[in-house]
Amino acid sequence: MGIGNERLSRLVEALPDDRALLLTDRSDVRWASGFAGSNGWLVARGNDRWLITDGRYLEQAAHQTNTHGLDCEIIEARTQNQMVQEVAARISGRVAVRGSAISWSLHDELVSAGRPPEDHEPVVANCRRRKDEAEIVTISRAAAIADRALSEVIDSFRGGERERDLRDELEYRMRKLGADGPSYETIVASGPTNAARPHHQPTDRRLESGDSLIIDVGALVEGYHSDMTRTFFVGAPSSELTEIYRIVEEAQLAGLAAVRAGVAGVDVDTACRRVFEEAGRLDLYPHGTGHGVGLDIHEEPFFGPRCQSTLGVGEVVTVEPGLYRGGLGGVRIEDLVLVTEDGCQILTKYPKDLRCLP
Amino acid sequence: MGIGNERLSRLVEALPDDRALLLTDRSDVRWASGFAGSNGWLVARGNDRWLITDGRYLEQAAHQTNTHGLDCEIIEARTQNQMVQEVAARISGRVAVRGSAISWSLHDELVSAGRPPEDHEPVVANCRRRKDEAEIVTISRAAAIADRALSEVIDSFRGGERERDLRDELEYRMRKLGADGPSYETIVASGPTNAARPHHQPTDRRLESGDSLIIDVGALVEGYHSDMTRTFFVGAPSSELTEIYRIVEEAQLAGLAAVRAGVAGVDVDTACRRVFEEAGRLDLYPHGTGHGVGLDIHEEPFFGPRCQSTLGVGEVVTVEPGLYRGGLGGVRIEDLVLVTEDGCQILTKYPKDLRCLP
Repeated sequence: MGIGNERLSRLVEALPDDRALLLTDRSDVRWASGFAGSNGWLVARGNDRWLITDGRYLEQAAHQTNTHGLDCEIIEARTQNQMVQEVAARISGRVAVRGSAISWSLHDELVSAGRPPEDHEPVVANCRRRKDEAEIVTISRAAAIADRALSEVIDSFRGGERERDLRDELEYRMRKLGADGPSYETIVASGPTNAARPHHQPTDRRLESGDSLIIDVGALVEGYHSDMTRTFFVGAPSSELTEIYRIVEEAQLAGLAAVRAGVAGVDVDTACRRVFEEAGRLDLYPHGTGHGVGLDIHEEPFFGPRCQSTLGVGEVVTVEPGLYRGGLGGVRIEDLVLVTEDGCQILTKYPKDLRCLP
Repeated sequence: MGIGNERLSRLVEALPDDRALLLTDRSDVRWASGFAGSNGWLVARGNDRWLITDGRYLEQAAHQTNTHGLDCEIIEARTQNQMVQEVAARISGRVAVRGSAISWSLHDELVSAGRPPEDHEPVVANCRRRKDEAEIVTISRAAAIADRALSEVIDSFRGGERERDLRDELEYRMRKLGADGPSYETIVASGPTNAARPHHQPTDRRLESGDSLIIDVGALVEGYHSDMTRTFFVGAPSSELTEIYRIVEEAQLAGLAAVRAGVAGVDVDTACRRVFEEAGRLDLYPHGTGHGVGLDIHEEPFFGPRCQSTLGVGEVVTVEPGLYRGGLGGVRIEDLVLVTEDGCQILTKYPKDLRCLP
């Protein structure tokens, strides 16, 4: 039994008896079928499976589903409406979907076709949380590529580079090291203004002495993402930046120490937040503490004060506290980790010691 | 009056009287507000405007909306549910949305909050079709960057490269030439199998004599995309591939000749399809003839047999017929063009003559 058949069977079994399933989210479809094209739906009813896509992808779909071990028929359709008709021709009654992954207009088309969707968001969203061995190997490889690219770029840093130069070099080197691309828009944020923006987009700004430099970089390998952030200083940092670094470092270690199968996601968030609170810096922490990573760069669970998830063995998550202040800059330290029975295994191995660049 | 204020006023005026508007699509939000972050909604009611985003983006949102000439208040919210509450606190009654751009689950949350969405898909989807001068300049710049990068990569071609090497070089060079990144996943498809897949993803395959080589490449500049495809041959092509090239070339010129303001989109598709039909090759044409390009790589209108749009002055669209056969390879030729009163202006200027590489 191939991996695709197995994954899809597990998913269908988690649904009410005889309920047909429709996957429309690109990552859900890829997870179950191996199909990596930009337009494809997967339909399952019992042991019957169909992949619906357009003419650009017929040959690729046949090849990739086969390689992935999914027995399915490939169906051609051009428009969303045609795709809905192909679904309706193969199943009857209600169809299980992920409510956040279908648009309101698709919902209405399914209702019109007499195949009203039924939201099984948690079943579908959670099925991808626990990674199998092959997935962990791929994600680890992506993390190792980003480690290596960052190492090469930092070691050849000479001062005066622009933020975008560092981004370009990182992405080029990740490709050369075997990545299919960056895992997300690489963040290179420097100095008192840009480094104070957690999700800054790289600009023409040149690195200057006194800057904090946040680099948030990951690699994409066979659809799987890695995610890591390191913060450097150009020249000697001010005592304020040094202190911020020490606090974030402590918070990140506290977050990592909290990760373990069976722990509530909110506890990981609290572990970091408590360090910031005790240091009187909580007001400088504007984002959540981490998230799951896999075929999506952001997936379940999400660590924040409202997180209701519990961690499980085999989940891959980030721990990424940071502090930011306009006029000063910012510091974020992020690792990607694999949740284990009694803790976690860190997949991103670039050193985290405070490091000053020339 | 800034460009953001102007665009949003035009959009609100196209809605029924006093209807509040909620934009959730990333490109719609960027078009109206200049905000380029990954999480933001724009709400408008009369002359009041709010941009709702999370803590990562507050500072960036204030900066970008200001630069874009949009007067609005920045509101912080973390979860989708909190964002809905912020919307509900500012408007009453029904809210105009784009049905394809909100998820079914968001639809339900808006209903629960007493702000049921009302689908104004065409109003919102079409507002971005006509590009203004600044947008055309930016798209032209993106097209010129891709032209130049392709020229550099082809001129340094020595034979034996892998598909992924060419992709990596193209994307690296586009960055060096000022692009923010590739416009989409660059396609480098070669030889009898890969070039027969219209949306092939680059592999380790090395170029060989006799190959057709399809390169589909665009640059991203300030959120705007370009899109171009050229087909080359390695060594001398077979007579069959040469004939296919001539037919696609003729079809592409016929498609370009059909483009003009006031023309039905289906006529552009038919112009290409007729050439293929007359050559007895229509069965080798599995995709549509083109699409609009702007802040999205694929946007309205879509040229296919079912297209119901009419072209207007200032729209930017592709014309991209192609023929593919497993065991032989494929040919696609694509230009990006600006629709004018009496024809079109071609923005992608890389030559289209049949060219054999060493």
